[in-house]
Amino acid sequence: MAESMQGMKRTHYCGELRINHEAQEVILMGWVQRRRDHGGLIFVDLRDRSGLVQVVFSPEVDQAAFEKAEGVRNEYVLAIVGRVNARPEGTVNPNMETGEIEVYAHTLRLFNKAKTPPFYIEDNLDVDENLRLRYRYLDLRRPEMQQAMVMRHRASKSVRDFLDQNGFLEIETPMLTKSTPEGARDYLVPSRVNPGKFYALPQSPQLFKQILMLAGMDRYFQIVRCFRDEDLRADRQPEFTQIDIEMSFIDADDIMSLMEQMIAMVCKETAGLELTAPFPRMSYQEAMDRFGSDKPDTRFGLELRDITPIAAKCGFKVFNSTALGGGQVKGINAKGCGSFSRKEIDDLTAYAAVYKAKGLAYMMINEDGSIKSAIAKFFTPEELAAISDKLEAQPGDLLLFVADKPGVVAAALGALRLHLAQRLNLIPEGMWNFLWVTDFPLLEYDPEAGRYFAMHHPFTSPVEEDIPLLDSEPGKVRARAYDMVLNGVEVGGGSIRIHRKEIQELMFKALGLSEQEVKDKFSFMLEAFEYGAPPHGGIAFGFDRLVMLLTGKDSIRDVIAFPKTASATCLMTQAPDLVEPAQLAELHVRSTVAPKAKA
Amino acid sequence: MAESMQGMKRTHYCGELRINHEAQEVILMGWVQRRRDHGGLIFVDLRDRSGLVQVVFSPEVDQAAFEKAEGVRNEYVLAIVGRVNARPEGTVNPNMETGEIEVYAHTLRLFNKAKTPPFYIEDNLDVDENLRLRYRYLDLRRPEMQQAMVMRHRASKSVRDFLDQNGFLEIETPMLTKSTPEGARDYLVPSRVNPGKFYALPQSPQLFKQILMLAGMDRYFQIVRCFRDEDLRADRQPEFTQIDIEMSFIDADDIMSLMEQMIAMVCKETAGLELTAPFPRMSYQEAMDRFGSDKPDTRFGLELRDITPIAAKCGFKVFNSTALGGGQVKGINAKGCGSFSRKEIDDLTAYAAVYKAKGLAYMMINEDGSIKSAIAKFFTPEELAAISDKLEAQPGDLLLFVADKPGVVAAALGALRLHLAQRLNLIPEGMWNFLWVTDFPLLEYDPEAGRYFAMHHPFTSPVEEDIPLLDSEPGKVRARAYDMVLNGVEVGGGSIRIHRKEIQELMFKALGLSEQEVKDKFSFMLEAFEYGAPPHGGIAFGFDRLVMLLTGKDSIRDVIAFPKTASATCLMTQAPDLVEPAQLAELHVRSTVAPKAKA
Repeated sequence: MAESMQGMKRTHYCGELRINHEAQEVILMGWVQRRRDHGGLIFVDLRDRSGLVQVVFSPEVDQAAFEKAEGVRNEYVLAIVGRVNARPEGTVNPNMETGEIEVYAHTLRLFNKAKTPPFYIEDNLDVDENLRLRYRYLDLRRPEMQQAMVMRHRASKSVRDFLDQNGFLEIETPMLTKSTPEGARDYLVPSRVNPGKFYALPQSPQLFKQILMLAGMDRYFQIVRCFRDEDLRADRQPEFTQIDIEMSFIDADDIMSLMEQMIAMVCKETAGLELTAPFPRMSYQEAMDRFGSDKPDTRFGLELRDITPIAAKCGFKVFNSTALGGGQVKGINAKGCGSFSRKEIDDLTAYAAVYKAKGLAYMMINEDGSIKSAIAKFFTPEELAAISDKLEAQPGDLLLFVADKPGVVAAALGALRLHLAQRLNLIPEGMWNFLWVTDFPLLEYDPEAGRYFAMHHPFTSPVEEDIPLLDSEPGKVRARAYDMVLNGVEVGGGSIRIHRKEIQELMFKALGLSEQEVKDKFSFMLEAFEYGAPPHGGIAFGFDRLVMLLTGKDSIRDVIAFPKTASATCLMTQAPDLVEPAQLAELHVRSTVAPKAKA
Repeated sequence: MAESMQGMKRTHYCGELRINHEAQEVILMGWVQRRRDHGGLIFVDLRDRSGLVQVVFSPEVDQAAFEKAEGVRNEYVLAIVGRVNARPEGTVNPNMETGEIEVYAHTLRLFNKAKTPPFYIEDNLDVDENLRLRYRYLDLRRPEMQQAMVMRHRASKSVRDFLDQNGFLEIETPMLTKSTPEGARDYLVPSRVNPGKFYALPQSPQLFKQILMLAGMDRYFQIVRCFRDEDLRADRQPEFTQIDIEMSFIDADDIMSLMEQMIAMVCKETAGLELTAPFPRMSYQEAMDRFGSDKPDTRFGLELRDITPIAAKCGFKVFNSTALGGGQVKGINAKGCGSFSRKEIDDLTAYAAVYKAKGLAYMMINEDGSIKSAIAKFFTPEELAAISDKLEAQPGDLLLFVADKPGVVAAALGALRLHLAQRLNLIPEGMWNFLWVTDFPLLEYDPEAGRYFAMHHPFTSPVEEDIPLLDSEPGKVRARAYDMVLNGVEVGGGSIRIHRKEIQELMFKALGLSEQEVKDKFSFMLEAFEYGAPPHGGIAFGFDRLVMLLTGKDSIRDVIAFPKTASATCLMTQAPDLVEPAQLAELHVRSTVAPKAKA
């Protein structure tokens, strides 16, 4: 029979008791981590959010409590009243924060029993993630999950403190809003009051935050839920949380420097890290050239080296024709991998092929510095020496080359670089390499559509001096955009927005949009911009991902209390679910799959 | 031609300049509030979030800037560089915070022009609210709206600060979740990946916050968006924001006292109020008896008085039969309204009829203390004196009576009381009457359905000593529920939850639910409760409403940046809107209204 709380008040958390509480009477409440009977006593490790403490029941202290404790099992919920004692010599547990003391209980109140959980409530659990998600309330009892939630709370609190101190207002924007031209697929919500019409859940508050700048709010932020109905990958959820920020009357440097301070504060207050600001900056072009990625992981070398000039003159036809046909030939030096087997090289080739590389050429450096390679014969000794030199090759190294269009070269070698770094264990622990990537191209050409698309979104401002190119060479125009990258992961990105009508018109023209298309897609926004738009810009951070990195987790699911699976379902509540046909009828929609009643 | 920000950095906000900035060179950025030409000079009031400052252009200071300023109109966006001067004697403006100074500008940069706004950017605007909502970005430029947003930000910040200091973790719960048995209509979201299934947007995170207590999170909060697809009244929005709180191992007093401290802190940090805690407490029964409402406005008297014992013996049949038939006869004293006309009394009767009162009996007190009433003849002089006494009647008063079932008496007289208080101007300014209403009935009997329903929700705990009544007299069981009321408005409400299985079973039994129904509606929740549920309870505050009261606004729309109309539409973005049929096809739904393409 479960008992009630009535008349009882917790005095301490379990995990906070120390030797200086000795001889105090305490009331503790929590869950049974485990029970052991030893030498006529019953030992119960009691757990709450703060940690564990050892509670002792002795028939000499209280016979009734002792007998009650005999019935106690794992995960039972108890209150105990007792006295804090120093542990006898030899029984101190240095691995436990409360290990110097134990609590001799004279009273036990049993709030609730518990069935045996399907897995242990402990860290480093080795069970199927689906089981953890199904019983998320048990999974979240594990200390590492509790700490992740504490860290997440600390992170959002410190973001809010920082932005508040810097004059930002948190302003809430609607969740029931309009389909935006953001690119991804929208979640839709049928309207009951407006038959045939639908709300969309926001992919981001982009339009609203720009509207708030037009409204003179000057500095806006929001930690806000966003939604994208995309097929899920490891690092994606249908709903995710964004730190959304916008400022007026500033330029890119202002935002970047403020955001460095903010991230430094968050890292300090959550993970205890001391970051050095300003963060390094790297242009998009340099990032692509050196790392084959616009989110370079700079914790290790293995950089891409360009041998196109050598390739252009060499006798190896694949290299030669690529170099002369506007392509690139680049290589990376897999240090010490000169003895890779044919099978290992084939695996790397297959890996590169995923990124559309048509082949992977390679050279091994023998102990005497000579080169062993099926293609070596197509190069003069001087060319081989130049290549060796370019890639800083040493005996025992393996040089890998891709010859292709620049995009393919970057993607394939960039991916190969990360793959080899993990395989060769090149990534040092404990490094937090933040950096900014800047000067992104404003537009990307899509050969299939036969037109340019905005790389970020159509309100991103071009770099001032590139404006004349919008007309003539749109592909060369740089955006006033910036991404914050941490250890090869994009944690945030933003831009200065266009606030001048004539630039916006040039932009739409470069995108090949007709007046009608512009009107259909952007009418209310464009109208708003006619009433006095200030210069403004902003940024958004993926909050789940940031917390994941700060807590050293591998998955954002481990920093979200109730995440969804790859098929966008919640295993605990079974959402989404069937609904009553009457509910749909009220919303003026009908399901097009076989009609079913709610189970 | 609009100019860019390049190379310019704001040094001050407009509204912060004071006499101690005299002789400083400043760079200001903002919107033109108005322009006046006077004595060969141009005066521009420049506005930003902080307020206004007067900028002066003189041809003697800079001819080019002066000429540029001639082209400036209201709401143009400018930067100016200039020198802060003390205003000449006689031109100081004491109504303006920056009224002691003006800025002589030597440089003007025009960031943007503006069309003439459809209404003035000023407080106390008298235009149709729909126009304001259509041009919300202009409406939000008005100082009172900006201050409302600042207050809202301050309120949420101070809630978060308080709860963080008190060991609460902000934990995010899903937006794409499952239809809950909460009562109101759900917003549904079709799932693309799970054909025929739907998510529901949360009406509140009730189940999740209880699950978090089971998960050992101990103290949870969230400032969170909730959704209810109800027909809208003045004080409702399809999406609204809730301060959601839950604690483990506590009882009602713990929560109530902590919440008093929290609300006191919020009121102090936003509106500068000093509240006295603890707040008064009143039982539901007392509130209904004295005020005819479970959210009594205690800022004024006009309390309900019970004359049922007198009525039971009197000769007036309507009173007599009601009193003897289990009904009530109660009255209120409309002080000084003894000279109301027949028409005025009829209006009051009609008002009471809205609340189902079948009639409104009345008595007027003549100057000599005698009673003038069509029904006076049915009462003995002693009875009239007793009634007079009970209602503390004095010459010139009007006594109003309703005889009916207790619920109708309370509703009609409670509403009449508020109506008269406003009409007679009885409500004092500047009073902040917070109070707790406690001891709500756990269950309400619905004669139509022929069974009891949970007044809050089925997880609300009964008062310990009333548990034996659950079986025998369910209607008499009190809930461990508490509402926080401010000036007659419910700002928050919560309860201690049931954590003991046997009590939950009694509750379901009292609700007349079959085992199957229990399983269908609450299965995952009940399963969770079998793994060790701690005693817990919580509360939720309507954040929009709280901010509305703190800012003294009449409508929650004035404290929401982008609210919706009574037909749940956003006049600025035109959400909800038509969508492409292909979007619906992907979601496995079809609209049942005439098919339309997106306009």
